[in-house]
Amino acid sequence: MSLADRVRHPAFLQRVMSAEEAAALIPTGANVGMSGFTGAGYPKALPQAIAARAKAEHAAGKPYKINVWTGASTAPECDGALAEAHALGQRLPFNTDPIARKAINAGEIDFIDMHLSHVAQHAWFGFLGPLHIAVIEVLGVTADGLLIPAAAVGNNKTWLEIADQVILEVNTKPSAKMEGMHDIYYGTAIPPRRVPINMTHADDRIGQPYLRVDPAKVIAVVETHKGDRDNVFATPDDNSNKIASYIIDFLAHEMKAGRLPKEMLPIQSGVGNVANAVLAGLLHGPFENLLGFTEVLQDGMLDLLRAGKMSKASATAISLSKGAYEDFEKNIDFYRERIILRPQEISNHPELVRRLGIIAMNSMIEADIYGNINSTHLMGTGMMNGIGGSGDFARNGYLSFFVTPSVAKNGSISCIVPMVSHVDHTEHDTQIIVTEQGLADLRGLSPRQRAQVIIDRCAHPDFRPQLQDYFDRARAQGPQHTPHILSEALSWHERFVQTGSMHAA
Amino acid sequence: MSLADRVRHPAFLQRVMSAEEAAALIPTGANVGMSGFTGAGYPKALPQAIAARAKAEHAAGKPYKINVWTGASTAPECDGALAEAHALGQRLPFNTDPIARKAINAGEIDFIDMHLSHVAQHAWFGFLGPLHIAVIEVLGVTADGLLIPAAAVGNNKTWLEIADQVILEVNTKPSAKMEGMHDIYYGTAIPPRRVPINMTHADDRIGQPYLRVDPAKVIAVVETHKGDRDNVFATPDDNSNKIASYIIDFLAHEMKAGRLPKEMLPIQSGVGNVANAVLAGLLHGPFENLLGFTEVLQDGMLDLLRAGKMSKASATAISLSKGAYEDFEKNIDFYRERIILRPQEISNHPELVRRLGIIAMNSMIEADIYGNINSTHLMGTGMMNGIGGSGDFARNGYLSFFVTPSVAKNGSISCIVPMVSHVDHTEHDTQIIVTEQGLADLRGLSPRQRAQVIIDRCAHPDFRPQLQDYFDRARAQGPQHTPHILSEALSWHERFVQTGSMHAA
Repeated sequence: MSLADRVRHPAFLQRVMSAEEAAALIPTGANVGMSGFTGAGYPKALPQAIAARAKAEHAAGKPYKINVWTGASTAPECDGALAEAHALGQRLPFNTDPIARKAINAGEIDFIDMHLSHVAQHAWFGFLGPLHIAVIEVLGVTADGLLIPAAAVGNNKTWLEIADQVILEVNTKPSAKMEGMHDIYYGTAIPPRRVPINMTHADDRIGQPYLRVDPAKVIAVVETHKGDRDNVFATPDDNSNKIASYIIDFLAHEMKAGRLPKEMLPIQSGVGNVANAVLAGLLHGPFENLLGFTEVLQDGMLDLLRAGKMSKASATAISLSKGAYEDFEKNIDFYRERIILRPQEISNHPELVRRLGIIAMNSMIEADIYGNINSTHLMGTGMMNGIGGSGDFARNGYLSFFVTPSVAKNGSISCIVPMVSHVDHTEHDTQIIVTEQGLADLRGLSPRQRAQVIIDRCAHPDFRPQLQDYFDRARAQGPQHTPHILSEALSWHERFVQTGSMHAA
Repeated sequence: MSLADRVRHPAFLQRVMSAEEAAALIPTGANVGMSGFTGAGYPKALPQAIAARAKAEHAAGKPYKINVWTGASTAPECDGALAEAHALGQRLPFNTDPIARKAINAGEIDFIDMHLSHVAQHAWFGFLGPLHIAVIEVLGVTADGLLIPAAAVGNNKTWLEIADQVILEVNTKPSAKMEGMHDIYYGTAIPPRRVPINMTHADDRIGQPYLRVDPAKVIAVVETHKGDRDNVFATPDDNSNKIASYIIDFLAHEMKAGRLPKEMLPIQSGVGNVANAVLAGLLHGPFENLLGFTEVLQDGMLDLLRAGKMSKASATAISLSKGAYEDFEKNIDFYRERIILRPQEISNHPELVRRLGIIAMNSMIEADIYGNINSTHLMGTGMMNGIGGSGDFARNGYLSFFVTPSVAKNGSISCIVPMVSHVDHTEHDTQIIVTEQGLADLRGLSPRQRAQVIIDRCAHPDFRPQLQDYFDRARAQGPQHTPHILSEALSWHERFVQTGSMHAA
């Protein structure tokens, strides 16, 4: 399919140029809003052209850096290329690229780690400064000048609205038959003019299938022909399967006890192998007519849709492995009826997450014995990826699970520690912690009660006595609501940094 | 006014008995939902009668404890009396009573420190177990059997709905003319049957003025004749006035810059002297037609209403000093038109806080250089009061301020520390930190940028070099997104515990 088939509005065709020409229109220091969410729908040509320009400018002794705001993570052709060229000044709100991660931790990139539901509104409020240019991947332009969104909606609606100028990357590779799958809600506003979001079911469509743009703002249209990053998912291992089975048993138990409605509630599932294992578990579990209300639709949810266990899935992006993507394109008419892609301010909206009663399942780096969760920082200092949408769902959902294997690095790290080295979700927001050892239900428990349950149910046996010893000695210190020995609270992390193991000498 | 004037429905009059007789109806181990929010609208006779019963049972060698759920804090006649009698097993979600605090920290009371917007729904979902008995202060019963709420609505609607049995305390002391001030919303539901809350302005009335109760559940009606706890507010000191002036200047600046709507947005103000100083500052500030959307209406907001600077105020409780209360009762017809008292699940609802664009102002115990906030724990271990509604507002509001004087205990404690000893609000949720030294605007800043701004603007000069030294040495350690020296991160708190001062030797 040629570019002219995809761009059916003459004003846009007049702006067609090469990625290099378009990159020349982006000055150093610009705030650039890019498409892209979890390795889907990111611009593929522009970032590489910008990176090449940055290298040329730097070689000529000139400064060149841009600030990049996205939906969430992108791919090597985007964050990787830009970071490798030292072309990133500020970056928000999420990153998984290893080259960019290194530059973030080195302090070269100013990384702002934000709740994904906050990004669009904070930009619109003006809190992040002006947005100079939007660089948005689309699948085409209709004869009316409307944009057909790609595999990720992310913050594209907002970038297109608030940017001074717009560059479109029209990707002719993905199936144009994705048209109609998206639901772009144009009812948001800035306070005091906000109104209720009129959604009462996870599969309600409340918007329109297209993104709008003022044609006068479009300064370039660039063609690309390239698929999204392939995501690789490991076959769920024993630990993931155990975690999944605890969660499914728990949900069945809660339903039996009347604490979970018989209709089941919509499911949010974070990114990764444990998440996919839980979804795989649901494939053979007792629940029918499931609904998905999540950020990223991954292989596991596609399987549930195909099997008929899940009736509809709402997300802001589709991020699949190669095999799953082939199935997706081949059966796109089937999936178009069952998948709804929304802006991330809607997919992650606190109002909707609370109203719909989402069951949130997110992975973490570590938990402490009082239920505080670290989702972002290795040993308290090194940024991994960012908080993403975990807080949007965990804080406002009906039930919230945080999951991790109980140990990491061949058993040298305990993922249950006396005190987490960084807090992303507080004790007030954590309900259920699950490792391959078991499940700790923290609802209605005081800190001391929580500590004993987490140690007994979730800690690895190799670390359990060491945790119990800490807790016992902390309690023995005297009256404390949350017993801690301040001089030891972070000593497990210190020990790992010094010796390569959290195990006591 | 006699009890018969206040209780205008015969079925309720048939249940009148003494507090002692009513207390005899509450068995040990019962989960009891009491009214009360920030020292207002709590039951006054029953808790003391329960405490007396507990003492008698204990003297007879028998166990007697109940679990008490409220709106928020109560008063010496309630939490104080119950704690003194060792009659509290579990307590949630908030406490300010010193006797109960001591028992909480001793581990005698299992205290669950919850977001105030979560309490009603978690109880309704069944997450907290069954609610056996509700003990609710009301001002009267209408001829139709509807209940006239008192000075605090709190979780009363939910307790009356889900409790097996109900005991009413009819307080004949407060003016019955408060009738009509309340707005009880009966539109909440359990997912998947939730619908949008149809409120678009802070002063919208969306419910009815009365609480409902099934008369068949009412097992006792007890008369009391006693005012709420007097709240004492110090005259704002220099520090409070400075903090207030920074906030007001900042709001004016933001409005000028177009980052705050010209109409101004509704204001939430936490409890205490700094909060009252900010409200006092608004009395002479440039903003007109203010709206309040807060938990607790205190003296400062009453002043704004009286002066005509604030047109309407929405809260879940009125908690005033003696003088302000006299003014409130004297001018109740004026205030009834301007004050709306709602259930706390509505006053603090994430959906509404975000939609209305609340400006949140809350005090804290300490902040760290990266913007994490400790609102609850002294030196990481000792419970002060609880998180209350601060998270409901800070997380979902349009702007969020956290305020504290820069030092405490005569300068021996720095309220800006390398790492907070407990996290209640994460770096992702904090926007603006204010001390008497200045204001740090953290929006759009990376951790390293935040640290420098907080040290420069908010730290006390006596501690600034020590903080800068920590930050410089942490940065020098190597690549870290959030530079910390783990072995020193909590050393300031340790030093205070050991030496009585955070100052370096």
